[in-house]
This record gives sequence, structure tokens and C-alpha cells, in this order.
Amino acid sequence: MTTPVLFFVDDLAEGVPTPGQSFHRADPAAPQLTVLDLSVTRGDGIFETAGVLQGHVQALDAHLRRFARSARILDLPAPRLDVWRATILAAVAAYGAAGRAYVKFIMTRGIEGTGVPIGWAYVAKADDFTAARRDGIRVVTLDRGYRQDVAQTSPWLLQGAKTLSYAVNKAVLREAARRGADDVIFTSSDGYALEGPTSTVLARFGDTYATPDTDQGILAGTTQARAFTHLEQAGHPCEYRRITTTELAAADALWLLSSTRLAAPVRALDGRAVVVDAETTARLLAALESAEE
Amino acid sequence: MTTPVLFFVDDLAEGVPTPGQSFHRADPAAPQLTVLDLSVTRGDGIFETAGVLQGHVQALDAHLRRFARSARILDLPAPRLDVWRATILAAVAAYGAAGRAYVKFIMTRGIEGTGVPIGWAYVAKADDFTAARRDGIRVVTLDRGYRQDVAQTSPWLLQGAKTLSYAVNKAVLREAARRGADDVIFTSSDGYALEGPTSTVLARFGDTYATPDTDQGILAGTTQARAFTHLEQAGHPCEYRRITTTELAAADALWLLSSTRLAAPVRALDGRAVVVDAETTARLLAALESAEE
Repeated sequence: MTTPVLFFVDDLAEGVPTPGQSFHRADPAAPQLTVLDLSVTRGDGIFETAGVLQGHVQALDAHLRRFARSARILDLPAPRLDVWRATILAAVAAYGAAGRAYVKFIMTRGIEGTGVPIGWAYVAKADDFTAARRDGIRVVTLDRGYRQDVAQTSPWLLQGAKTLSYAVNKAVLREAARRGADDVIFTSSDGYALEGPTSTVLARFGDTYATPDTDQGILAGTTQARAFTHLEQAGHPCEYRRITTTELAAADALWLLSSTRLAAPVRALDGRAVVVDAETTARLLAALESAEE
Repeated sequence: MTTPVLFFVDDLAEGVPTPGQSFHRADPAAPQLTVLDLSVTRGDGIFETAGVLQGHVQALDAHLRRFARSARILDLPAPRLDVWRATILAAVAAYGAAGRAYVKFIMTRGIEGTGVPIGWAYVAKADDFTAARRDGIRVVTLDRGYRQDVAQTSPWLLQGAKTLSYAVNKAVLREAARRGADDVIFTSSDGYALEGPTSTVLARFGDTYATPDTDQGILAGTTQARAFTHLEQAGHPCEYRRITTTELAAADALWLLSSTRLAAPVRALDGRAVVVDAETTARLLAALESAEE
């Protein structure tokens, strides 16, 4: 039995006074935030979730880079990535090396009126995704309401940043459940496949693998990037491109990739059966569960 | 000097165990929430902010109705409105009757995995809006990225609910500041004026007052409803309708209405001067500051 671990980041961002230490441990079961924290009142902050495998944080550099990018999009102070890295590694070390876990790190804009962000890293046991990985998941497409070019035309909508304003990302999962499905692929209002609420879309067309271009207001997937590295090394062409919803429905195989579930094959899309490519799934999982990335 | 007041709602929603009391007081400066509260990690909850004038909560019924509507849109347990009302009134009474204040009440989905929502009411001094009310505000229109019919076509986007996922509503204010403006009117991707990030649009065309239809994924304004009551009693036609961005730019006068600032006349729209209708503004403020609604 492993107990969740919480470390606050003290020296967390450029321009924020240095308290003389990098981080401190706190009790995750105890109240830590006031009701005036802007994460609470406005969902105003950013986060990342990285997989932890036997004490190793997977793709930490990529997560930190994306965290810094989210901070820029939200006009938050630039996170001191060396301090965040040290905090995350300390929290993971305190958790111990047992099995599969995840580390979630968050920076909020802080208590309203102070201008001082607040940040922490939280480590806990990962859910068991054995069934999803083996049997596949049922997915529905849901219109995100935005055109695919929204990040360029309306950057103030924060598309492409991983923010704490995720009520919609939870609401679409409830809508999926009402439709008898397990997960969602967002589509743009002009007919392109985008991403899952907490995952990246991977599609196979023949021997070629494709994922939607990240200039469509979607996140650059850290797990998908690792999957591409593996697939390219195995000789498969991989590409970032526009994928229409019609193409998505015609893919030979589909996966949702994310940091803790890693690779979940899609077995139904909008109620229509999709062939589960168990062999590729097994190869992807083996590659993604290697501890040295 | 009045000190902010915080009351937690204990018996807050249908299906949530009754702890034998309705509410309890807590310290707003002390940590009250864990880092696992879904308001923190997902912006997953709802809120309302009502004006408080010399101890009287304005339009409380309308705020409670809208709160219950937001809960339905987010599939949250139905709030026990009698308990919320009692909590809000107790918090306001504890605050005292001095001057202008506001009460913000929040219900979160609670700590992840528990299924038990958490709620509170927070009362504090209102900002001083004298200058905005007298001199007017500079407003820019910003595309919200959604069509005007998005609440009907994609209800999972939670448009029309007052959620804690408000990072975009804060981001647009930063974009407005970059453009030398004070506030924002969202527009739909198909060219209609919608609402402000924390306000309702009121437009005057000749002797007629208009506000955008609330079936466009926007909030029914509690302050705007009170303004319509006053304007109709004074003999002015008032209507809910579609207002195109072209019509908005041609209005004879514009206001943003909200619960604490009440009525702020617009003096510039997208950099073009708009005539401030000081007489109507004064009449609206006098009506909206009456304590008996």
C-alpha cells in the first residue's frame, strides 16, 4: 500500500520571491488552499500529469516544456523548471518505487489579488487500465464547437493550453456515458478530428500512423510523441496532419494515447465497431512502459 | 472596516447526507480545501455573485434559480435552495450592514472520488465602481468561437451555466487590456453579440432597449432583468432578440450590467467612441440600488 504524496513548490516562478527553499512536503488529506485561490474560483491555472513507472517519471522533459508553454498562453509567470523538476523528483522519491503511479503538477494564479502563483506536485497510485488496454474502449465524437483554426483566430480561448478549466472535459465524459461509451474524441465545428478530453488520437491507415496537427488548438501529446518515436524506429511512416471526421471513421485502427492509461485501442466509434489491433497495442504498450524515457 | 465572512453550507444538496446543521462559519484566510477538490483540479463547480446593499442581498431568488439551473446543466446534485438561502443570509448578517458588498456562493463537485459536493458563501466589500459608472468603460468585441446556437447543438460545452471554469473569462480581460480596453463583449462565430465575461449587454436603439436572447448559450442576467422591469415601468419597450455585431456597433447607447458594478455605460466599442447616456445610467443606477428587490 502506497500513500499519496504532496509537495508544494516554494520557489516556483520567475519574479516570485524566493523563500529560501525549493519545496516542502504537506498532507494531501488536509486543507491546503483557501476559497480565494483562483484555481478554485476561476479554474485559473495549468497542470500536467505524467506517468510514473517504478519510481521513474516518464517524459518529464516533454511535460515540463508543455507546462511552460501553457504558462505563456495564460500569461502566468514562467515556471522555474529546474525547481519544478526537483520538486517532482523529490515527491516521486518520497512516494517510493512501487508499481504504476502518476504525478500531477499544478500551478494556480494564486490567491486573488496577491499576484503570487501557488504550485504543487501530487503523486498517487494509477488506476488499473488492464481491461481498457486489452478489450478496447467505446468512443463517441463530440463537437467542441470551435473551428480547427481557433487557436490562431482567437488565442484568448486558451485552446492548446492545459488549464484547470476542465469542466467541459468532464461534461463530455458524462455525455459519452449517456451514449453508452467510455471516452470522447472532440471534433471541430468544421469537421476535423481533434483530441480526447485527456488524450491524443492515433489513427492507423494501412501501414501509416497519423495524429491530428497540433496547430488546431490541441495539445502536443507527450505519449503520442513517444509512440511516434517507437513506430518510426520500427519502420512505419508517421505523420501530423488534418484528419477529417470521415477519415477518422475509415481508419484501420484507432487509439487514445495518454500518460497513465498509455495506449487504449478504440473498439467502437459512434456505435460502429472498430477492429482492435491487439498486436500493435501490445508493441506500443511495451515501448511506452519502458522506464528510460 | 468590515472583515470578509465565510460560511460553509453543510446540508447543501439533494442526496447528500444531512450533518444535522445547515451551515458553519469558517476562516476565509485559512486553508479550507484540499488539492483534490474538483474545483481546484477541474474547475468543476458552479457559482453566483449577488450584490449586497446595506445588508440586503439583491435579486437573491433570481440568483438561486440560476444556481439551480447551472447545477442541472453540470449534472450536479440539486442544491437545497432553502439551505443555501439561510446560509447566505446568515453570512451577510454576520458581515454587517455597512455599505456595498457582494456575496459569492460556490458549489464544487467535491473531493475527487467522494461524490459529495462542497459549498460555501463568501461575503466581502465591493470594489468602488464610481469612475466606471460615471465615465464609462472601453469595450472590445472578442469572438467566443462558438455559433449562437451552440447550447442547443452541443449542450456538453456547458454554455449558459455559470461554472468555475472561467480561465477564458479572465484571459479575455487580459486581451482587452492589451488592446487598451477595460472589458469585453463576446461575439458568436456567426456574428452575434452575446454577453460580457461577467456581465449582460444592454443596448438602446432610439427609445427601445434590447438584450441578446438567452438561448444563445449565455446567462440570463439578474441585473438586466431588474433593469428591464424598471425601463418597462417607465414606458420604454424592452426586448430579448438577436443583435448582430453590426447592430451593436450602431446602438445609440450601450451598457454592461452586472450584480456589483450594476450599470457601466460603454464609452468606446472597438476603439470607436460611443455616446454615454448619463441620464439613463443615473436612472438605472438609482433603480438598481434600491434595496427592496
